Amino acid sequence: MHNLSVIELSGYQMSSTARLDATFAALADPTRRAILARLVAGEASVTDLARPFAMSQPAISKHLKVLERAGLISRGRDAQRRPCRIEARPLAEADDWLEKYRRLWERRFQSLDGLLDEMKSARRTRARR
Amino acid sequence: MHNLSVIELSGYQMSSTARLDATFAALADPTRRAILARLVAGEASVTDLARPFAMSQPAISKHLKVLERAGLISRGRDAQRRPCRIEARPLAEADDWLEKYRRLWERRFQSLDGLLDEMKSARRTRARR
Repeated sequence: MHNLSVIELSGYQMSSTARLDATFAALADPTRRAILARLVAGEASVTDLARPFAMSQPAISKHLKVLERAGLISRGRDAQRRPCRIEARPLAEADDWLEKYRRLWERRFQSLDGLLDEMKSARRTRARR
Repeated sequence: MHNLSVIELSGYQMSSTARLDATFAALADPTRRAILARLVAGEASVTDLARPFAMSQPAISKHLKVLERAGLISRGRDAQRRPCRIEARPLAEADDWLEKYRRLWERRFQSLDGLLDEMKSARRTRARR
């Protein structure tokens, strides 16, 4: 039953709001972020993924289900290995959401840079006197 | 007691891993994302923030506590209004984390673009014959 609902709601049958909720919730865990970091290098099976972590395969499988439900990974059809593959789209959507805020910190860093420049030139003027 | 632990752990006394966990968990909710979107326009009190949502002030206050604990907002000292202000740093850190994956989707979009270009020129070649 649980597996069925995972299949039904995974990927892009969710609204974009629900997708962002699922993506950010999936990213809120260090093991899941480490799994994604590993998958950037290429596909991997549950066994491959469990190895570097001090975690059982069922524990890793649970994390994979969260990632799969959020559409962050897909799994191969090979019944034995079911290799995991990272999916870029939900990450791109999370990045799009954050983009609206990029101006905010860029503006704040710029005003900090401006302040530091002013301080530097004020110090130089003082040193010259 | 709860308030105390919020104060003790908020902002930058957490490790960077715990900070990312808290940031992504805080962003995994549409109301909290909407609150941040509102705060980009400027500081706001709980009353201001509760207005556009069909939510009680205590419900909004709960969301604000999650955002504050993650360092995503800070609150003014004015005991009456305690105005909320968006803080850019945790968003910048989440953006940094996602940046490592940006190449992934850019590469995939590029290969898609390449494929579309090939299809276009193949169609043009055919049309010319």
